[in-house]
This record gives sequence, structure tokens and C-alpha cells, in this order.
Amino acid sequence: METSGKVIKCKAAVAWEAGKPLSIQEVEVAPPRAHEVRIKVLATGICRSDDHVLSGSIDNVRFPIILGHEAAGIVESIGEGVTDLKPGDKVIPLIAPQCGDCSSCQHPRNNLCLKADLGKNRGVMADGTTRFTYQGQQIHHFLNTSTFAEYTVVEEIAVVKIDEMAPVHKICLIGCGFSTGYGAAINTAKVEPGSTCVVFGLGGIGLAAIIGCKVGGATRIIGIDINKDKFTKAKELGATECISPQDYTKAMHEVLIAMTGGVGVDYAFECVGHVDVMMAALLSCRMGCGTCVVVGIASAEARISLSPKLFVSGRTLTGSYFGGWKSKDCIPKLVSDYMAKKFNLDGLVTHTLPFDKINEGFELLRAGKSIRTVLIF
Amino acid sequence: METSGKVIKCKAAVAWEAGKPLSIQEVEVAPPRAHEVRIKVLATGICRSDDHVLSGSIDNVRFPIILGHEAAGIVESIGEGVTDLKPGDKVIPLIAPQCGDCSSCQHPRNNLCLKADLGKNRGVMADGTTRFTYQGQQIHHFLNTSTFAEYTVVEEIAVVKIDEMAPVHKICLIGCGFSTGYGAAINTAKVEPGSTCVVFGLGGIGLAAIIGCKVGGATRIIGIDINKDKFTKAKELGATECISPQDYTKAMHEVLIAMTGGVGVDYAFECVGHVDVMMAALLSCRMGCGTCVVVGIASAEARISLSPKLFVSGRTLTGSYFGGWKSKDCIPKLVSDYMAKKFNLDGLVTHTLPFDKINEGFELLRAGKSIRTVLIF
Repeated sequence: METSGKVIKCKAAVAWEAGKPLSIQEVEVAPPRAHEVRIKVLATGICRSDDHVLSGSIDNVRFPIILGHEAAGIVESIGEGVTDLKPGDKVIPLIAPQCGDCSSCQHPRNNLCLKADLGKNRGVMADGTTRFTYQGQQIHHFLNTSTFAEYTVVEEIAVVKIDEMAPVHKICLIGCGFSTGYGAAINTAKVEPGSTCVVFGLGGIGLAAIIGCKVGGATRIIGIDINKDKFTKAKELGATECISPQDYTKAMHEVLIAMTGGVGVDYAFECVGHVDVMMAALLSCRMGCGTCVVVGIASAEARISLSPKLFVSGRTLTGSYFGGWKSKDCIPKLVSDYMAKKFNLDGLVTHTLPFDKINEGFELLRAGKSIRTVLIF
Repeated sequence: METSGKVIKCKAAVAWEAGKPLSIQEVEVAPPRAHEVRIKVLATGICRSDDHVLSGSIDNVRFPIILGHEAAGIVESIGEGVTDLKPGDKVIPLIAPQCGDCSSCQHPRNNLCLKADLGKNRGVMADGTTRFTYQGQQIHHFLNTSTFAEYTVVEEIAVVKIDEMAPVHKICLIGCGFSTGYGAAINTAKVEPGSTCVVFGLGGIGLAAIIGCKVGGATRIIGIDINKDKFTKAKELGATECISPQDYTKAMHEVLIAMTGGVGVDYAFECVGHVDVMMAALLSCRMGCGTCVVVGIASAEARISLSPKLFVSGRTLTGSYFGGWKSKDCIPKLVSDYMAKKFNLDGLVTHTLPFDKINEGFELLRAGKSIRTVLIF
């Protein structure tokens, strides 16, 4: 059945308000307008950021909304003026669009396209309207993607073609979690051969950071989590040792400084989203050149209190959105690197569920039982 | 008169306690022991850090002490085992030693030699004793240098030979202030051609940062100070515009974001040492790639309170000691660059006084009337 140019009725997981389970419902997905692309979603991961919206810790989100942002799919149809994509292309939707024209896109080191919805949470397309409705009621978009639906519409600047042979149920993670953690190590920290790294928090992002540290050539990668069930996987992916704060009476930064001959680590990655952990990560960095990368998302009102001395003695506190990748330029290359076995992210996918079981996937995440659950349509 | 191997009696400015003027007194300077060098100081700058000790805002300093750390001189004699220096060599003492052996010196990006006295404030030579006495009483060393004396003794790792033609009353600033500000721009921020920079605080360090921004190729360099008398010099050295916070009702970061088309600056340098200014500097940095370099020294108990969001949206807070320069490797090269007119630091020296007028020099600094006063022996 030809669907191009028509409204598609399909299943989507609608978030009506914070604190409630998602409702699988039949929604209407309008055809793509000019410079938009309608995608048949094939696989989507469940990420902690989706849960942050549901728990209410990301402010100003407009409900009802279709969440989901880490996906892969096939172009179903294209709007007027779309030239670099055609129906049938395998694609990844982009939480960090790349318009190519704004001052960020023109900047050699800036991947935060000014057209990104990040932080603004407008939840609409560029023309101010949505493509999703439920019985006539407007439903908002999320992070330029909204992949918890059988079909979604994204702007041309927020989707990129990838290798048609790539397995969607794995490489969908390149749309968010993998690239964020991996890029934090490769782009933001620029991990060097021979360096010592520590990763706080061994969820999907933390494990992706470990993969990045390993690819960067780190000789020592210390994984930290209070859930020791995560140690085996962390070691499989590159951690050289794993420790739990619950096994020590001393503060973690003291433990790490002692473990590194009194000097501290070269690179620390905070993949938890808690200010106390951020503090521990920064304090574990060595004087003169240690770098702490904040990857975890803390609550909106969280504040970290620091002595300026930490910086004038040569430490760096930094972070990035989406691992610092310029998405249109880099995502196809990351997929190629995966296909060429430069890294293996398969271990990050611990559960695969049918889309209808999305709430079960969120429960696995909250219970600490999954790294990534991928939903298949 | 041959002085080698003998105690030298000479003038020094002794700090007996915080909050009191320095006393010019005759002290005894012992001969250099193994791997030490005795230097006849020819010129020394008065730096804010010396005043921080006198005002009591640097903790754990051991009095009595001979301050001064930004100098140039001539080797008077050498101790046993010193091979790379000989009497008569023109030298700069090093507040950031470079032993070459420790894990920091072996690290390609770390200039914080573990043998530096920075932060430890032991105030003694490696063997635990001092080379200064006053009527038999031990007087402490400062920052591996102690240049407010006609003669000083430093460790071999804390002094480097420079071009014998270099003018000591100018290039003494390469021993601290110039290199700190210049290196903050060149090494720590790595200012790129075409970038927009802002420098908060137009004292010696801030002006040196401006020189670094200009050499780095910045096209826009905004200087900020509440003392407008400093604007002319800032513009001579490279600032493209200067503003005073007192001319605005809005917060400085809002002013700067508006001045840069709503995006913020690429690089911000805090050369004041106040947490509110550090906050303004960080908030003025653009999302995605803005970097704030803390150069000013805040009080020991100062704390800066930050939202982690600033980092996960791609900002960096960093800093360095001595501009990140590996001293033995880089200081001779900086002096050569000065001789080759790659930069001109002469404008930083606003006053030249005889050593005996050292307290007058401190008064000029505190009154905001000088950038750098250089004392000549």
C-alpha cells in the first residue's frame, strides 16, 4: 500500500504526563512537509534520558509527547526539497541536528547546532506545528526525533543515511548512548595512548566511555559502580579493573589517588549524573593535566561547589552533548567503524523486546537489570 | 672578590609576618650545595602572588620568608654535580621546576613537576634546610626562587640559562606573570585564528593573556576592567575593545552574549581571582565549545557553585600553573621569541625602581597604579 503523501495511522507510546506509564495508542502521523522526512522506525533503544522526562527531572517538557530518540529505520517518504535522502534509505535520526549553516555548524569544534531542540524543549517542527496527533489532539516531538512510534517525522537536518547492511537492532545505539559515551572519551577528553582512566557508573554510557578509552589507547581503565553485577561486562568491554565504593571506607578520590601512586588519573568520566560523583571524579584527576568529563545528566537544580584552586593547579572540567560529534558528518563514519569492527557495541544491548513491551523495558532500566533494551517493531 | 664557596652577606627584603611591610636587612646566603645554584639577582618583578602572601590569603606559608619569584640574574657559583650551568650564565629562576624524572615531567602535557614547592609551601631546599639566615635564624624560601634578595640559592632543576643578550629588566617577567597569562591563551586555551576572546581583569596577567590571544590569531579580544585607566594599554597590546562592568546594569555574561550575536565567546580568561568573575567568565562562554580559563588566584576558602548543565552542553572550565609551560624546555624559547620580536612584553613594565624601594612598589600594585614594577639591584 502506497503511504506517501497520506496520513499514516500507527502505534506509538504516548507519554501523557510525568510519573505515568506510557500508553501504546494509535496515533496519526502526518506526511513530511518541505525539508522533512518520514521514517519507518525499525529499532529504538530505551535511554535514561527518556526516563528522566518521565520522572520529571527534565524541566519544561511539553506533554503529551512521544519520547524515544535512539533509533534506526528506513525512509518511508520525503518532503519537498529533500535531496540527500530517498525512500528506502537506512537512516539514524539525529538528536544533535547539523544544519550546516548556523554559527555552531560553521565552527570547526562545535556540534551544538543552533536548530537543536535540546534545552528549548519546544517539541514542535521548525514551522511550529507537530506531525503527531491523537484523535485530533497535538502530540509533541522529543529531541528532534520521537522514535517510540512505528513512524516518525523529522527534519532533513536531523536524519542521516547509513550503511544499508548495518544491523538496526545494534547500531540504533549510535543514535545516542554509544556515541555519547564513546565521543566523551575520543573527542572531549581525547584519551591518549598509555593514559589512566576511571569511569564512574557502568550503565550504557559508562560502558561506551570504556570502549572509547580502550580505542584511545588507555593502558589502565578503572570501572566504578555500586552494582557489581556490571563488572563482568565492563571487563569484557575494556575495563582493566572494577571497584565498588561500598568496599571502601575512604572517599573514592582518595582511593583512586592511592591506586595511582599518589598522583591521580589522567581522565575521569562521570556517567551517573550526581554532583557528589562529579566532585569525586574531578578530585581524582591528577594535578597539572587531569581532565574530568561530565557525561551524566544531573537534576535541573543540582549544583557542584568547587574550589578554584583545582583549576589553577591544572585540572579541567568539561563535557559535551552527544559526545561532541558533528552528527551528519560523523554518524555514517561511526556506523562504518562498527561494520569494520573498530569497536563492538553489541555487548551494550542486554535485552531485545517487542515494541509493545516498552514499559517492561523501562522497568528493567530502573531496576538496574539492563544496560540497553532495544525495542523491535 | 672571589665569593664562590663562601657565605655571602647581602641585602634582602625579609617578610617577618603577614600584614607588615618588608624589611630590607642584611642576610647570610650560604653557598650552593650539591645540585644547587647561587644566583646574583639583577632584576625582579613584584607580582600579585607575593602580595597574596603578605595579605595572608595564601595559607600555610612559613615565616620569616624571602618572597619574590619573577626574576633574572647571573649564576654566581654552582654546587657539586651541576653540569648544565656555569658561573656567568644569564638565567631565569623557575617557579615551576622541571626535574625531568618524575611522572609529571615524563608526561607530555604535565608541567607540574612533583618537586615544585607550589601548594606545599615547605619553604626549604630539597635537603630540608634553608640557605638564608638572619643573625643565625633560618629564613624560608618561596616558590623555589626567593628573588627579593641580592643573591639567592635555587635547585638546579629550578633555574634555566637564557640568551645572554636578553634585557633582564624586561624578560624577568617571563619568570612568572608574562608566561602565566600568555601560556593560558597559547597552551591552556589553545586560542585559534578567528576566535572571539574576553579577558576579565587587565593587570599584568590579563594583559599577557591579551598578547597570547593576539598571537593565537583571535580576531576579537574584549578587555574588561572596572579601572578604565587600563584600557589604553590593553588596546596597545591587542584588545579590540574594552568595557567596564560599571557602565552596564545587566550582568557581564549577558552583555557579552549580546555583543556576540547571542552565542557567547570562544575563550574567556579570568585574571582577577574572584569567584563571581569566574562565574561571569564561564557563563559568557558559548555552548558547544566555549572554554573558560581560570588564571586569577582566589582566596583559599573561595568556592564556585556551578550547574552541571553548563558542562553537558559543551563548555570547559580549566586552568594551569605557569601557563602550562614545561619550564626548562620552554623558557629559553620564550626569551628567544621575545628577542625575535614575536611578542613585546615591554608595555607590561610600567615602573622600574631600585630594590630598596620595594615597599613603594607594593603600594603602587595595591593602588592599581602599576601593571608591573621591576626592581633593579
